[in-house]
Amino acid sequence: RRGEMAKSTQLIDNEVFRAYATYAAIVLLKMMLMSLITAYFRITRKAFVNPEDTASFGKGESAKKYLRTDPDVERVRRGHLNDLENIVPFVGIGLLYALSGPDLSSALLHFRIFTGARILHTFAYLIPLPQPSRGLSWAVGYSVTFSMAYKVLKTAWLL
Amino acid sequence: RRGEMAKSTQLIDNEVFRAYATYAAIVLLKMMLMSLITAYFRITRKAFVNPEDTASFGKGESAKKYLRTDPDVERVRRGHLNDLENIVPFVGIGLLYALSGPDLSSALLHFRIFTGARILHTFAYLIPLPQPSRGLSWAVGYSVTFSMAYKVLKTAWLL
Amino acid sequence: RRGEMAKSTQLIDNEVFRAYATYAAIVLLKMMLMSLITAYFRITRKAFVNPEDTASFGKGESAKKYLRTDPDVERVRRGHLNDLENIVPFVGIGLLYALSGPDLSSALLHFRIFTGARILHTFAYLIPLPQPSRGLSWAVGYSVTFSMAYKVLKTAWLL
Repeated sequence: RRGEMAKSTQLIDNEVFRAYATYAAIVLLKMMLMSLITAYFRITRKAFVNPEDTASFGKGESAKKYLRTDPDVERVRRGHLNDLENIVPFVGIGLLYALSGPDLSSALLHFRIFTGARILHTFAYLIPLPQPSRGLSWAVGYSVTFSMAYKVLKTAWLL
Repeated sequence: RRGEMAKSTQLIDNEVFRAYATYAAIVLLKMMLMSLITAYFRITRKAFVNPEDTASFGKGESAKKYLRTDPDVERVRRGHLNDLENIVPFVGIGLLYALSGPDLSSALLHFRIFTGARILHTFAYLIPLPQPSRGLSWAVGYSVTFSMAYKVLKTAWLL
Repeated sequence: RRGEMAKSTQLIDNEVFRAYATYAAIVLLKMMLMSLITAYFRITRKAFVNPEDTASFGKGESAKKYLRTDPDVERVRRGHLNDLENIVPFVGIGLLYALSGPDLSSALLHFRIFTGARILHTFAYLIPLPQPSRGLSWAVGYSVTFSMAYKVLKTAWLL
């Protein structure tokens, strides 16, 4: 029994699953990086949203002026939200896709293109690059997730 | 060894897991659809948030007037955020629930009600339908996720 | 065949996976709780964002005055978004970590610290506690997820 239980957790020995784990971790870490960039801009631009965050700048009006929005902070936050909207479906559908028995080469193609597209998307958003850089990188990542969802539904379909 | 490894990835052969994969993919695709609807309203209402997105409308003041919020765009964005807040817990808790060994019929009941409720929620938000349509469809989906979490905690509890 | 299939879904019998399921369900339920707190403040502060939500307060101007933002509502919403930004990576990376074969004691340490940190973060945000309470509890949770990602990448790395 113990042997069987151990075996059933060895998903991580499967090559497609290892590739999924690698790329899912990378894109989730990339998404987490957005929090640090937001914090960096909030501190350097002195633009906060919670009164308790400005207490170290003194009391009253002197601190209150730092409760403001800043275009750079808002831009990073939009990039972060866009990551949530796109990386969450990738991680969820990608897991099901990895378990649906794709070829390693097809799986790597999907994971690599998605990850590359989302890294480009972040640069396109933060620099910012002229359009359609951001739009195209978004569309490429979106299409990859859609393609994986198609494979999942074709393999698993049970309504 | 190879045979064992392959076997351990055959979760997708399990009927409850197949049902989970089907419904999780459907609700994640529905959530992704919100991005397209937002883009549609941004373009048709000419309401953008990034200066680089309005460059094709010309330079200076003529483009700047399209950097504005639009009630329809904001409505879709709220629906999208509500999806993130509710579909993410469903996908995460639903995976654990599917692995906790429920009957296929119970699992299908949970997955179908959640998916139906979230589709209704989207229509109720975007049309919009009078309340309590949106509130009720939200509450039904919320309760289904809660019920699955109860089963997961009852089965897996190890604190 | 049937026996094998059943076996492959018995992840829930693995102790590390059971611990993961328990803590993932707890933090996802905690995140879902933010929706109820938002609803509570919207109703008690009478601060709504959708016109159809104020219909029960009458028609025209008398209802329109409740379409407003409220500092308490906005605070809960920021806490909710922060949960999405941090709990989603924990749930995703934590699953991969649980499947990467960690010791039960290491796994429990990671899961317990993260869960404790996020519960503290919520109290720090909602009360609010003076900084650096919220900042520190955020950083602790962030570091735990980072540590799990390191283990996942070290175990699974296949680029």
